[in-house]
Parts: sequence; structure tokens; C-alpha cells
Amino acid sequence: MKIQDLFVEGSTKKLYLTDETEKIVIEFTDVLPPSVSSKKVVVKGKGKINLDISTYIFEYLGSYNVPTHFISRLDNRKMFAKKLGIIPFQMKVWNVATGSLVKRIGLKEGTLLETPVLELYLKNPRLKNPLINDYHAYTLGLCERSEMNAIIRIGTKVNAVLKSLFSRKRLTLAYFTLEFGRYGNQVILGDEISADTMSIWDTPEPGKFDKKVFQLAPENAKPVYTKIRDRLLK
Amino acid sequence: MKIQDLFVEGSTKKLYLTDETEKIVIEFTDVLPPSVSSKKVVVKGKGKINLDISTYIFEYLGSYNVPTHFISRLDNRKMFAKKLGIIPFQMKVWNVATGSLVKRIGLKEGTLLETPVLELYLKNPRLKNPLINDYHAYTLGLCERSEMNAIIRIGTKVNAVLKSLFSRKRLTLAYFTLEFGRYGNQVILGDEISADTMSIWDTPEPGKFDKKVFQLAPENAKPVYTKIRDRLLK
Repeated sequence: MKIQDLFVEGSTKKLYLTDETEKIVIEFTDVLPPSVSSKKVVVKGKGKINLDISTYIFEYLGSYNVPTHFISRLDNRKMFAKKLGIIPFQMKVWNVATGSLVKRIGLKEGTLLETPVLELYLKNPRLKNPLINDYHAYTLGLCERSEMNAIIRIGTKVNAVLKSLFSRKRLTLAYFTLEFGRYGNQVILGDEISADTMSIWDTPEPGKFDKKVFQLAPENAKPVYTKIRDRLLK
Repeated sequence: MKIQDLFVEGSTKKLYLTDETEKIVIEFTDVLPPSVSSKKVVVKGKGKINLDISTYIFEYLGSYNVPTHFISRLDNRKMFAKKLGIIPFQMKVWNVATGSLVKRIGLKEGTLLETPVLELYLKNPRLKNPLINDYHAYTLGLCERSEMNAIIRIGTKVNAVLKSLFSRKRLTLAYFTLEFGRYGNQVILGDEISADTMSIWDTPEPGKFDKKVFQLAPENAKPVYTKIRDRLLK
């Protein structure tokens, strides 16, 4: 497979076409995501760390038969992936009430959720990426009902698999985001699952959290990214 | 049945207990709803008009076997109803993209929706009555999954029945809100379905709308309420 033209440049990733129409190359850059810094900040080595985490998680999910776009790792910055027809919403999966979830529905900060909360956010910056429900998705023509069922099934399974993986490492997966796309007539997991898309809390003992240990900020980015990778992959 | 103590005073309705524990009396007041006026404005006769509309619609829905709390009319301001255990969210059903739906998901104002859009709003003024999804409802303990299925079934059926009723009267039911509650182990329709809870547009000919004809405002309230009732009940 040969890398060809850059065809999408996202905030933290670059997508290249290859000489095989069904496959692309995804490059993980060193730029901090908008969730960590509104200004463009480069943290040397961050791309590799997130690729390490993403590779590890995609391979782990694959071993549980979760369909993902991951094919294989190419080098320290890039991976091969299936080229998807993007479904333009993001799924956010919550296991702990915090942040925008607390703001919206008013649970106590840090409440462990008995069953996960799934949310869909339209990817439309002009509309400020609003929360949507399944009816909004259908009326906008974003996906079919059968695809939504598959998306919810995959999201729920990914959470169940990762939650217990993290728990074995004394980590709490507080919340994370997923993206989906079409490959042939199947809906599969796309994007990345990395320190940029997860909120991981330290769990020194069951029922105790420390969200500060892994809280990313421009000034502590390098050591925290490293710490997340090392705790997760050890 | 005898009216006893006032036990809930809402923005436009008063609820009284009766000497039968399972039944209440609902009084429709002349106060404009917050959606029409943020200040308290009284429009003489408005309560009767909304009771006329609500009675008509609840009886019509009853004839289609939709379970509602409506029992019978008592006088020009009051009706008997079943006493419900309230489920604290509101359902908003949209047949036309307008207002907050356009703001959220960005369809063109006035787009006729092929299939209705259902939304749930948490009744919590402190949190500004946010949009929620079914997962939020479950995690807050607002209802069970089986109840949610019943709520969605009822909401969809109410819309189908009313949409064609309105269409026969050359009216478009652009959107409306519903509330639900528990009666025994059943979920049924509560609250009111009136000019205060519906947005009705004139439809001089198929595909043409005039939303101004029935647009309520404090300065035109009396004639517009009357016009809605007369067009609907004629």
C-alpha cells in the first residue's frame, strides 16, 4: 500500500488516501485537541502516545469482535484504516456524572452511573455541535434506524469491554466519545480511542476517584499523556 | 364527587383534590402561559376556550383508544381527571421544522417533516428544562424502559390521530407538547392539549402555511384563542 494525497486535515489528525481505494492512512499529530487547548499547542511525542493507546484499544476491541476501521500500524505516527462513509455525529458514553452531563441533568458530580448514559452530538460547529436524539438523526437523514441500532449496540459493547479493562488497571473510564461510519453495508467504529477522546480517572481503591491525576492541560500535557499510556498499556 | 383542597397551582391551571382519592379537578385559569407572556396577563374567557379545546381533543383521542386522564367536564372552567403520579418530563412532537428545532438541528424554517420528531424535555426550571434523551431519563429514575416504550407509542399515536384531524380542518399541527403520568400500573396521557400547548398553522391550501393567523401574543390573545377554538371545533 502506498500513501497518496492528504484529503482531510482535522484538528489532531491527517487522513491520506492510498493506492487502494478502500484504505486510508491516518496520521496522529502532536497538536493538542480543542478540548484541551483552544489555541494551537504542539506537544512533541503526543501523536505517538495517542497512536499507542488507539492501536492497543482497537486491537483489544477487535479481540472481542467489535468491528472497527483499524487495519494495522504503519509507523510511530500512522496507521492503516478502512475508508469509511462518515456518519456525522459523535457518541458520548458516560459512566460517571461529571462535566456537561451534570450541567444538563443535575446529578451530583462524581456519581457512578448504574447503567451508562449514551448521548449523540451532531458534528456541526456552526450549530455548536448540539445534543440530538435518534429522531433528529433520522429527520436529518444521518442514518437509518437499523444503523442506529447497530451504533447503539456497538457503543454499549465498547463501553462494557473497556470499562472492565480499565477497572482491572484501577482506572475509571468516566466518559469517552466514539465515531461511526459505513464500510460496505456495515456500520463500524471509526476515528480514534485515545487520551484525546477519553476522560480517565485514577481509582486508588474501589469507589474512590481522583480525576486530577490524568487531567490534561497545555502546561502538563506531556507527563499526563505519558502517564495515561503507561498506566493503560502496562 | 366533591371538590376539596387546592394542591397544585401551576402557571395556567389549578388542581384540586376531591373526596375520591383517585380523582382530581383541574381548573383552567385565564392567565396566559409563559410561552405567550413572561409577565402575568389575564385574558378573560381564555380558560373556557382551552377547556373547550382540551375536552374536545381528549374525547376525540378517547374514541381512538388513547388512554388519557380526562374523565368528564364539570363546568365552564373545570374538568374531572384521574390523579396521576407525574413523570417529570414533557414530550414535544414536531411535524414542521420551526423555532427551537431549527435552532438546534438547522433545517430550513417551515420544512414539513416526513416523519415526526419526538423530543423529551426535563421539567426542571433550575436547569432550564433541558432536552434529554431516554438514557438521561433512566439514569435520573424518571421512568422504566417499558414505560418509555408506552410513552413513545402514545405520543406517536396522538400525533397521527391529531395530525389527520387537523388536516381535515385545513390546519397544520406544527408542534405540540404532551405530559404523561402513572395511573395504577399504566402510563397515560395527562395535562392538557389546548391552544396553550400546540402550535397550529393555517393551511389555506396543501403545502402552504400561514403561521401568523394563529400566532398568540398578549395583545391579540382573545381573538386568536377564539379563532383557534372555532376553527378546530366547527
